[in-house]
Amino acid sequence: MTAVAPKVEKEEEQVVNPWEVSAGKGGIGYDKLVDQFGCQRLDAATIDRVARLTGRPPHRFLRRGLFFAHRDFNEILDLYEKGEKFYLYTGRGPSSESLHLGHLVPFMFTKYLQDAFKVPLVIQLTDDEKFLWKNLTVNESKRLARENAKDIIACGFDVEKTFMFSDFNFVGGAFYENMVKVARCVTYNKVVGIFGFSQEDHIRKISFPPVQAVPSFPSSFPHLFSGMEQLRCLIPCAIDQDPYFRMTRDVAPRIGCQKPSLTESRFFPALQGESTKMSASDPNSAIYVTDSEEEIKKVNKYAFSGGQDSAELQRELGANLEVDVPVKYLNFFLEDDDDLEQIKKGYGDGNLLTGKVKNLLGDVLSELVKRHTRARAQVTGDG
Amino acid sequence: MTAVAPKVEKEEEQVVNPWEVSAGKGGIGYDKLVDQFGCQRLDAATIDRVARLTGRPPHRFLRRGLFFAHRDFNEILDLYEKGEKFYLYTGRGPSSESLHLGHLVPFMFTKYLQDAFKVPLVIQLTDDEKFLWKNLTVNESKRLARENAKDIIACGFDVEKTFMFSDFNFVGGAFYENMVKVARCVTYNKVVGIFGFSQEDHIRKISFPPVQAVPSFPSSFPHLFSGMEQLRCLIPCAIDQDPYFRMTRDVAPRIGCQKPSLTESRFFPALQGESTKMSASDPNSAIYVTDSEEEIKKVNKYAFSGGQDSAELQRELGANLEVDVPVKYLNFFLEDDDDLEQIKKGYGDGNLLTGKVKNLLGDVLSELVKRHTRARAQVTGDG
Repeated sequence: MTAVAPKVEKEEEQVVNPWEVSAGKGGIGYDKLVDQFGCQRLDAATIDRVARLTGRPPHRFLRRGLFFAHRDFNEILDLYEKGEKFYLYTGRGPSSESLHLGHLVPFMFTKYLQDAFKVPLVIQLTDDEKFLWKNLTVNESKRLARENAKDIIACGFDVEKTFMFSDFNFVGGAFYENMVKVARCVTYNKVVGIFGFSQEDHIRKISFPPVQAVPSFPSSFPHLFSGMEQLRCLIPCAIDQDPYFRMTRDVAPRIGCQKPSLTESRFFPALQGESTKMSASDPNSAIYVTDSEEEIKKVNKYAFSGGQDSAELQRELGANLEVDVPVKYLNFFLEDDDDLEQIKKGYGDGNLLTGKVKNLLGDVLSELVKRHTRARAQVTGDG
Repeated sequence: MTAVAPKVEKEEEQVVNPWEVSAGKGGIGYDKLVDQFGCQRLDAATIDRVARLTGRPPHRFLRRGLFFAHRDFNEILDLYEKGEKFYLYTGRGPSSESLHLGHLVPFMFTKYLQDAFKVPLVIQLTDDEKFLWKNLTVNESKRLARENAKDIIACGFDVEKTFMFSDFNFVGGAFYENMVKVARCVTYNKVVGIFGFSQEDHIRKISFPPVQAVPSFPSSFPHLFSGMEQLRCLIPCAIDQDPYFRMTRDVAPRIGCQKPSLTESRFFPALQGESTKMSASDPNSAIYVTDSEEEIKKVNKYAFSGGQDSAELQRELGANLEVDVPVKYLNFFLEDDDDLEQIKKGYGDGNLLTGKVKNLLGDVLSELVKRHTRARAQVTGDG
């Protein structure tokens, strides 16, 4: 009776790793992931605690369970409660000219954390990783990193407290020492177990994980954290990055470092539905932060709808919110909880039609992109 | 009838790789190595050509077949003949406080090449490698690199034309870019085939070979070779380093680089005999460049002799020069060909006794070490 997302018929295992996210039958099983990865669920008590400690309402990504899992986030809060600081680490693999909406999610959340806790932040652009996986030239990878950096700066981080670097420009010195230390603690069998490499993979793939691991250690940044080698690190990221930090947490005590803590988000779904995450390499699956108002209208064409096929049926049966992409996007980007509830109720009841919801989403996204474009123009001096 | 070196009874395969040199039955089979590695023999015509092109007699290491193999050395000579330059690259893994005599061999030969061809030289100290294999701390590895650097400088390179660096201090920028490029061209299966790694080896071992590969490419040193990215490279080294450069030569054309050429030496034997090379980690097998005159007397005690057990037998039968370590050392370090022939003849005939030959060697080594000590003291300011 209700609309369902298109699915491959045969029973498929869900695959979630830093290079592939594909759902099994019935979408991504986030509960299963938490169990499989061995991380913890982010519960209401922890979210209340964040609100209390920071004196501000929890971010909508917390309120709505979009950041839903963590590792030792409570330890960070314990320290903060005692008056100690920590630092944030997040990053991006620059694979496309500009960010899409899904890429904004960790940066938006990281900005909130930086503002709320008033802590330093390091941002890694893994141009050396994308060079590998995307078969780019070094110069093209570096160029994409620079382009992406503009979008990231446009997110509005505290410039006094933020250090952004690309691997091709920054690897060396203490950072390289830590890469070597980490790599000495991880066997080939271990990375195969964590990342699923094959013997035909080139050795750069096998040697990359330490590069993403070491920004978790303050000693990788002596110019920022000299004398603070035991400062704790909190990493906001999507849950597909968990394998890197599982490895990092395993190695940390063996090289005299603190384990990083994590807060982990759900994936931002493709326009076509939640069976995979939005991908920058498929323009029909993604909305870019540089899309024009006209281009944002691809929502109307491509966003998978949980609404019924005709207005009559919709009024009679209502939409299936579980699979509806516009509602999922509103869940990420519409700030006001009451507005969101009203839309969901009306749409689920059948009072709101699909076209109306898509238009509402279009307005929200247009506003978001317009704000981003203005901020980006200030970064590049085009504003 | 003649003395023979002590040997393991069972038939053993010879193993030669950057971390292990152990002879099969009958000592290192250099001919077999040349065939197995696929390099070329350094013939008399090439040595004559070197003499002609440089206008000076060939180094004793060439005259005596101690540098005995090469890869495309003739191409370097072709270019040189046409008036083009090249650069030299050699290095050292700093595993001990000071160099032993065997370590001096590539540096002595490199100095000769630099003087004869008047070309630039880069010297890599792989402190990041020794950190791995020897289980040192980063700081201890760096300290050993600095200590070894003093011994290397004492060899007397042209300071205007020589750049020496340690990996922990230098990796980054263009050098790191080249590491990543090389690693993208080499599969796990390939390094296992070349280096024999196991799945229980840590990933740092697997990711190290590109670090030793990239000094072969001028683009790794933009501060030296900007605009000279196609400059050819000649690597003087012991033949156990061949696997690194086999890999490098395989990758080079795929990343738009020239293949490095090599000249490859025999191993400098341990005091105990030619079944293995001199090892810095066994003080009874090695003579260090910092040994005192007293310590050099370990030659008398430990150097495996091809002489007979008694003076009578020696006079009757003569020494077996094939296995005699003092003669082998004289072969490396006694400059005068006539003197060497005279000693070999007298010793082989039985006219010279073992004690006398060992004393002659002691004199040569004392002189060598004294000269080195003086040069080193000038480097450190202790002179």
